[in-house]
Amino acid sequence: MTNDNRTFEARLDKLAEVAVRVGLGAVKGQEVVMTAPLDAVPLARRITHHAYKAGATIVTILYTDDATTLERFATASDESFDKATAWLYDGMAAAFRSGAARLAIVGENPSLLAGQDPAKVARANRARSAAYRPALDLIARSAINWTIVSAATPAWARTVFPDLPEAEAVARLWDAIFAASRVDAADPIEGWAEHNRALAVRTGILNEKRYAALRFTGPGTDLEVGLCDGHRWAGGAGKAENGITYNANIPTEEVFTTPHRARVNGHVAATKPLSYQGTLIQDIRVRFEGGAIVEAHASSGEDVLRKVLEIDEGSCRLGEVALVPHASPISLSGLLFYNTLYDENAASHIALGQAYAKTVEGGGEMTPEQQIAAGINASLIHIDWMIGSGEVDVDGVRQDGSVEPVMRKGAWV
Amino acid sequence: MTNDNRTFEARLDKLAEVAVRVGLGAVKGQEVVMTAPLDAVPLARRITHHAYKAGATIVTILYTDDATTLERFATASDESFDKATAWLYDGMAAAFRSGAARLAIVGENPSLLAGQDPAKVARANRARSAAYRPALDLIARSAINWTIVSAATPAWARTVFPDLPEAEAVARLWDAIFAASRVDAADPIEGWAEHNRALAVRTGILNEKRYAALRFTGPGTDLEVGLCDGHRWAGGAGKAENGITYNANIPTEEVFTTPHRARVNGHVAATKPLSYQGTLIQDIRVRFEGGAIVEAHASSGEDVLRKVLEIDEGSCRLGEVALVPHASPISLSGLLFYNTLYDENAASHIALGQAYAKTVEGGGEMTPEQQIAAGINASLIHIDWMIGSGEVDVDGVRQDGSVEPVMRKGAWV
Repeated sequence: MTNDNRTFEARLDKLAEVAVRVGLGAVKGQEVVMTAPLDAVPLARRITHHAYKAGATIVTILYTDDATTLERFATASDESFDKATAWLYDGMAAAFRSGAARLAIVGENPSLLAGQDPAKVARANRARSAAYRPALDLIARSAINWTIVSAATPAWARTVFPDLPEAEAVARLWDAIFAASRVDAADPIEGWAEHNRALAVRTGILNEKRYAALRFTGPGTDLEVGLCDGHRWAGGAGKAENGITYNANIPTEEVFTTPHRARVNGHVAATKPLSYQGTLIQDIRVRFEGGAIVEAHASSGEDVLRKVLEIDEGSCRLGEVALVPHASPISLSGLLFYNTLYDENAASHIALGQAYAKTVEGGGEMTPEQQIAAGINASLIHIDWMIGSGEVDVDGVRQDGSVEPVMRKGAWV
Repeated sequence: MTNDNRTFEARLDKLAEVAVRVGLGAVKGQEVVMTAPLDAVPLARRITHHAYKAGATIVTILYTDDATTLERFATASDESFDKATAWLYDGMAAAFRSGAARLAIVGENPSLLAGQDPAKVARANRARSAAYRPALDLIARSAINWTIVSAATPAWARTVFPDLPEAEAVARLWDAIFAASRVDAADPIEGWAEHNRALAVRTGILNEKRYAALRFTGPGTDLEVGLCDGHRWAGGAGKAENGITYNANIPTEEVFTTPHRARVNGHVAATKPLSYQGTLIQDIRVRFEGGAIVEAHASSGEDVLRKVLEIDEGSCRLGEVALVPHASPISLSGLLFYNTLYDENAASHIALGQAYAKTVEGGGEMTPEQQIAAGINASLIHIDWMIGSGEVDVDGVRQDGSVEPVMRKGAWV
């Protein structure tokens, strides 16, 4: 529900305050490195205000522009697509190592690259992923406080509300973002504290269960996801290595942990389309054997999906499994957002690729080789992908092989 | 003169083409690192098109935003003002070292920081200059092809045309930019080739003269600027160390060389206000002794000027002297642009701070210590500053002490 008594500017300002005070948690004495689409300038400016107000030393905004991305695909020579701006990503990694916090505003056009050559898209993604790896590693292991928040851009809004005039679509999408991000509460900061407490109760229960595996069953799905020995469930606020408590996603509804990279078997059908780097991949159906995807289909974007699976040894294995009740506020909106930050918080999901080592006991201190041996997956990519719905059940498989219900028809048991 | 038969979009596209093909010269196989104000998005996008068309691998645009700069001064804690984004500037230097070309779109609000605490402005400038030094060094010695081009932003246009409505001021400023950048010619690329040939004739004459010094005389000015032994005059197209012929400034009307850092004596009055990092410094009058400014006054911005002179040992000494006829197209426009790229090409000028080592025989191969010994100045800053007008004469002082006229009332003799 939106609160019509507040102006758009006031709600945008609250979202910015939540992004800084809840998302980043604290930025006193830190640089903030922000990325944002050009259409998100007003939100980026309000976030800048709240970051400086909270004691940030310098806020840097790196804007991305769909028009110049398309210009590259339309005009650049072939060699362009194996290149990436290593100097910029290395610079970001250097910023993180020297203590900077990281804030991403997302709101991409979900099908920006739909008309482009899938081979070029895959090459550009691969080059970018490789160049971004050092920075992503620091984020994946929570070396610093980081957060992702959304802005309603015209292209994204048109995808979510294809039948509405653009201005109305953008306004409706902002309403959905403000509601999901809990900024319409009388005291959004306290509202988030309460939400984080509820998620902590849920992770506490799951951590006591110590399941060996989760089993997902539903239309087109019968999948057993083995969990790492010593896995820990996380959700809501977490603590970064720099000691700062932060929320990595605004909004967030999920609790998640680390699957074992070699213990996933069965088949699964995605319950929502996946928007990956400007390509919409629809009706994904895959089969796992010994942790790896051995068969993959999609009704559109199958080329891009196959290229993703071939990126490296870990890109066809799981790095995350997350549970989200079908009654989450985002799910109840009934909207399909074509945006991972939203859709992943509307449904239980799995993620291909890089795992979060912190959700395994001692995982953060392991060498890369030790992580692999412990079943913690490694990859250039991390792609969330929805498999939950009101028709999907989840069971917990105990260490002794016995089974108990965890979710029924998408609701916590 | 503007050509009303062309649409704004067509002229903007020509400016972008000139920026790439004349300014950068060639970008095949190179990354392009662009900086631009947020108000220059349309020009930045057209430049991106022409850069990819010319074979650039990846074009990256780093946008700056006056609003977030002001937010920092309004809201950030005191410690902010001794910080700079070293990771970003180091990243740019890394890009240049790995072969990237550099393009800057400028169009700042000339008095953006006028209302801010001069001490904070000076600290922020100093921190930024120190962090940018490694990247600036590569540009100063022309390791790579680089160029600066302007875009008409609302804040800048309002300063140049304070009596016009904003939209009209912006349109008038674009007209001035298109005209000065020679994009209204039937064939702008050929027009630039011809202009570069004319500048080469002028530098050829001056290089044969081998003056020991130049003497400027006019209202409030009697200044002798000793030139480095082995100085060379440059202007228009130059060749970077990567072998690419480029034009560092679009537009450009100047011919310039390297003064000796210890051989400048007398007093000089600026003929135009100087816009430095958002502060307007007016009616500058200074006195030099043995190369250093020993007395400095200004009717406004004197605080900022004094801080600039104290930045380091070289910031009160000259790094450039340039001659521009008073009849240059920009000067004939009769406009005061409050923008160095334009005003420096409307009048003869000197620059405080860092020298271009390339305009001294063998200067590019010298160690920093050898450069200082040869009279080539070093500093964190490089600030151009107009001292020419229709009332200023320039004489050449030969090695034997005899004198001959170079310019009279601002015109070549």
